[in-house]
Amino acid sequence: MGSKPTSWRLPVLWEAFVNYVWRGAALALTGLLCGSAPALAQPPTMAEVLAAAKPSDWRPVALEDTLYLELPTGRVVIELAPAFAPRHVANLKALVREGYFDGLAILRSQDNYVVQWGDPDAEQKDRQRPIRKAQRTLQAEFTVPDGMPFTPLADSDGYAPAVGFSNGFPAGRDRKTGRAWLAHRYGMVGAGRDNDPDSGGGTELYAVIGHAPRHLDRNVTLLGRVVQGIELLSTLPRGTAALGFYEKPEQRVPIRAVRLAADVPAAERTDLEILRTDTPTFAALVESRRNRREEWFRYAAGFIELCNVPLVVRPAARK
Amino acid sequence: MGSKPTSWRLPVLWEAFVNYVWRGAALALTGLLCGSAPALAQPPTMAEVLAAAKPSDWRPVALEDTLYLELPTGRVVIELAPAFAPRHVANLKALVREGYFDGLAILRSQDNYVVQWGDPDAEQKDRQRPIRKAQRTLQAEFTVPDGMPFTPLADSDGYAPAVGFSNGFPAGRDRKTGRAWLAHRYGMVGAGRDNDPDSGGGTELYAVIGHAPRHLDRNVTLLGRVVQGIELLSTLPRGTAALGFYEKPEQRVPIRAVRLAADVPAAERTDLEILRTDTPTFAALVESRRNRREEWFRYAAGFIELCNVPLVVRPAARK
Repeated sequence: MGSKPTSWRLPVLWEAFVNYVWRGAALALTGLLCGSAPALAQPPTMAEVLAAAKPSDWRPVALEDTLYLELPTGRVVIELAPAFAPRHVANLKALVREGYFDGLAILRSQDNYVVQWGDPDAEQKDRQRPIRKAQRTLQAEFTVPDGMPFTPLADSDGYAPAVGFSNGFPAGRDRKTGRAWLAHRYGMVGAGRDNDPDSGGGTELYAVIGHAPRHLDRNVTLLGRVVQGIELLSTLPRGTAALGFYEKPEQRVPIRAVRLAADVPAAERTDLEILRTDTPTFAALVESRRNRREEWFRYAAGFIELCNVPLVVRPAARK
Repeated sequence: MGSKPTSWRLPVLWEAFVNYVWRGAALALTGLLCGSAPALAQPPTMAEVLAAAKPSDWRPVALEDTLYLELPTGRVVIELAPAFAPRHVANLKALVREGYFDGLAILRSQDNYVVQWGDPDAEQKDRQRPIRKAQRTLQAEFTVPDGMPFTPLADSDGYAPAVGFSNGFPAGRDRKTGRAWLAHRYGMVGAGRDNDPDSGGGTELYAVIGHAPRHLDRNVTLLGRVVQGIELLSTLPRGTAALGFYEKPEQRVPIRAVRLAADVPAAERTDLEILRTDTPTFAALVESRRNRREEWFRYAAGFIELCNVPLVVRPAARK
């Protein structure tokens, strides 16, 4: 990584570089893999951490808890977090399995905030998409009883007493109240609601496409995270009506289908692996980002914010 | 805002709502404007703060320090910050005035990070865009001597000893070193560089289109902020080469021209006003966002991060 890349003119973000590390640049790091690691006085970079990761540092996405949002431009893969929103996840899966979303649309794209999808006729009871077995609304799950695995982030956070990661998801917790919750950050998916806290349920979903709106934490039920394809949402034209809603029906983006990965034939699945967040490898990755050691950097922050910690995804190895 | 909006299914972001407040919803708030303010037990919302703002709470964008980046899809307006990057701003203006950027291109769009523009042939000395009077590279201005106006944010920040706002720009400062710097957040514009800190100068620029990469603070020269049209950058297709560079020349987005607002005939200008950040109105706005009082919210954060404080822009009143 020390050689000067032609015309890159940094800043560099390593997250998008992961695929390249796995395919090609890993060659340059085989010293680490072969046990002939150079005697580094400083902690490794993220590229080095990932190159040295073991197969057990990764887990597959959970097929029973992963959705494929099929758009005309491709597939958005969303991993659900049943530990943090058990009722919403179960209901969303029921909605998906009865084909609720098929033929509905993306309704809203608000710059630096959210993309939102659901039923354009949700407010018109005579025209709204019918629901067979699932629920239209549910009791809110803004927070849940703590007790799930939790890897705390050592750095402080202004929005929560403690933050960290649970099974690959960003989360907050409060030991005084004994509650935990998912935290908003880029790519997180939640259940839209009206003013009544219990008016959501999964029929209308949003994904964060901008700076983390952490003030929404504990105000809305988050239920998953986009693990591939967020750019299909983040590059959508912004809506020009209030709050980024599309003004005209023809501006909406049609949803071909939403399917559960487990229901899709194996050959049509998107096989992904998630870097586990409860391992020494992940701890090393966090440290590699708290103080950047890549040659380009001149000042080490000595800190990292929850929403700047990479949550790394890679194509699964061929079986 | 108490009435339930049809099919909005929040979350709501007020920033994009500002125009609506000025045009229509202000009617609903005339009680405040007419002196018959309701006896509120709680602090006002952002909409109420803006509706009650005085003309003196706003300032015009500085014509001599504002650039128009003209794309096939429209105009991106960038206000420069000479107080934080005097050499870079002067050089960038010189580059613009000699037409350096006209006909160059957007080269890179990396999801949740930056869009970058400049000379595709910058690394090929025999083909690179010539420069007449301006400089190709400059001494870095990662930080500058403190001393400019500064409205501190009371809430803590992990990336800097203190953060706040100076003339509408987000900034950090360190009293121990006596230095100040612009902070990365959505829409901020900086000067790309190679590994040598003094290899930038303004010929290659980037704008943040994702979560604030605050670890870049003090590592690169920030020099301004997009005050209108960031969505023309944030919705660009992502590049599929390493770091989000476009793989093929035809994928690049041509730059029709970059012009200084002061050099553009008055009739062709985009007249904008910026909410001042050194006023009681701005302090009230910050407070309105630390604890959201809108009916939708159930939990008040009691905190706000630098990058979630709205920096409000509106069309200038007709003269």
